[in-house]
Amino acid sequence: MAGRLDLKHGAVDMSHGSGGRAMAQLIDQLFRKHLDNDLLARGDDQALLAPPAGRLAMSTDGHVISPLFFPGGDIGSLAVHGTVNDVAMCGARPLYLAAGFILEEGLALAELARIVESMAAACNACGVPVVTGDTKVVERGKGDGCFITTTGVGVVPEGLDISGANARPGDAILVSGHIGDHGVAIMSKRENLGFETEIHSDSQALHDLVAAMIDAVPEIHCLRDPTRGGLASTLNELAQQSGVGMQIREPTIPVRPEVAAACELLGLDALNVANEGKLVAICPADQAETLLAAMRGHPKGMDAAIIGEVFEDPHHFVQMETAFGGNRIVDWLAGEQLPRIC
Amino acid sequence: MAGRLDLKHGAVDMSHGSGGRAMAQLIDQLFRKHLDNDLLARGDDQALLAPPAGRLAMSTDGHVISPLFFPGGDIGSLAVHGTVNDVAMCGARPLYLAAGFILEEGLALAELARIVESMAAACNACGVPVVTGDTKVVERGKGDGCFITTTGVGVVPEGLDISGANARPGDAILVSGHIGDHGVAIMSKRENLGFETEIHSDSQALHDLVAAMIDAVPEIHCLRDPTRGGLASTLNELAQQSGVGMQIREPTIPVRPEVAAACELLGLDALNVANEGKLVAICPADQAETLLAAMRGHPKGMDAAIIGEVFEDPHHFVQMETAFGGNRIVDWLAGEQLPRIC
Repeated sequence: MAGRLDLKHGAVDMSHGSGGRAMAQLIDQLFRKHLDNDLLARGDDQALLAPPAGRLAMSTDGHVISPLFFPGGDIGSLAVHGTVNDVAMCGARPLYLAAGFILEEGLALAELARIVESMAAACNACGVPVVTGDTKVVERGKGDGCFITTTGVGVVPEGLDISGANARPGDAILVSGHIGDHGVAIMSKRENLGFETEIHSDSQALHDLVAAMIDAVPEIHCLRDPTRGGLASTLNELAQQSGVGMQIREPTIPVRPEVAAACELLGLDALNVANEGKLVAICPADQAETLLAAMRGHPKGMDAAIIGEVFEDPHHFVQMETAFGGNRIVDWLAGEQLPRIC
Repeated sequence: MAGRLDLKHGAVDMSHGSGGRAMAQLIDQLFRKHLDNDLLARGDDQALLAPPAGRLAMSTDGHVISPLFFPGGDIGSLAVHGTVNDVAMCGARPLYLAAGFILEEGLALAELARIVESMAAACNACGVPVVTGDTKVVERGKGDGCFITTTGVGVVPEGLDISGANARPGDAILVSGHIGDHGVAIMSKRENLGFETEIHSDSQALHDLVAAMIDAVPEIHCLRDPTRGGLASTLNELAQQSGVGMQIREPTIPVRPEVAAACELLGLDALNVANEGKLVAICPADQAETLLAAMRGHPKGMDAAIIGEVFEDPHHFVQMETAFGGNRIVDWLAGEQLPRIC
């Protein structure tokens, strides 16, 4: 296999998706090099994995974020965190990732290398390897630099039953930290807004926080990461799925002052803004303080808060007591506010 | 959740990727409706699966084929077959699929519905359900209608050891049927070539053929589906991975006359043309006739043939005895001959 990729000045061309020699070079010199592990190195079209002891969890997520690089992360690390989190949200321990790249002709190989290195660093930090992958190339103008679809599998410890359908009237609703950071970081970068304090995406893997939470309160009813559509859509999804209503209190919801200010400027509601390193948890009321303490005791849950309760409601409404003492319906995100936020 | 999708006249817009109400409608009224199964219906961001008894196989494949609809299939059925086949090529029984859609703003909902219906039909025919999924939408001009990344998991029966690294000098090389059908069908459609006999893609799932082959010859050394890059690239991959050479004989390789004629017209070498319903098998020479009989006894292997042998070669060359009695090197596909063929 002669020939070296020109990682300094080269660009993706259609031959990198051909199934021929150029594709083999790209895989060897870029993907395998950085995402190195024994399972991937095997070089077959599928990974062979040890039998997991327990129920499997499987989740997939396409990443089309624009721009590819942003304060606090890039599409590579995001593609790892996003899927690790989706797997973890049923209490599963994430084990393996598959990664499918769709590259646009002309993408600088140097940018692709940055993305793959960042993925590899995120995989190492999470302890979850990419064990199999795929690369396709589309013509200029038929893609947008780089899309990454990651799929994760994990194993669910015995005895857990965590699902969006399990919220019960009386349960407490918690959030693991400040909301809105990711969406506002992306929008600020996209709109070229220079704030005094740069706002960073919260993109991070939450499986270790989830493990600590389950250790403390195995009876957790629901976990979900409020990504696209933000906290508002996630709470509405959970209310719908469980057939319940929810009441939250605005002053208890953690929002950084600079994020609140940016939302005001951009005309956004922080409740609708995507997060990539936060989770919502619902648990029996009498376990809420224990869960809160476990979350605050973990570096990724330091700013956790109890933000409301579940109640019976045949309409499955999510309502919020506002800072001014009123009460309003918190609806699903309608229309399109923040395209390509993840 | 008020509002119905207009499947007759509607189109994908950015709100269908928002995480809000429009996305929930698309998922409910289109994806869940057609890909209906208990695991998907659960509505969480991940599927919970029974513990598989054995080693897991995992594979992922992005599908960016153009055009979306072609003689013999479409991107929906292809996305199922492609990944089912990748999982099956280590001898695994495919169990579950995840599907990630990247849609371009403006895609007709009627086209998307056709694609999803076709996926559902392929899943039913294979007995492999889509258990979890994801949808993203990109702006007009940043995608190309519809990309689908599917990821499959399967379970490998005890005692099998099938890998691209297992070819040994003396082994026989078999192919399961006519090569080149898929690539020529796509190129003909793309170039608007009207042949007397319409050439159909061979897109099909091969896991049942693989099961029949393993029943007959559990000692199979290698299996691989010669997709992008065709038979030539697949044999070179296997030669490289196993550290061996290969000798094949041109007259024994099944190619339909109409495919051979179209290749001549289009300036293609059938050995480089993609297949989506064929496999290459390598097994000990003394088992080759038994394996051939098992393949020919299955509807998807009726035209199987023994096409050559593995031999020792430090250069890992694949050589072919031509129809005229000469011998030539069969190289990897170089450059880009058939973009976006899968």
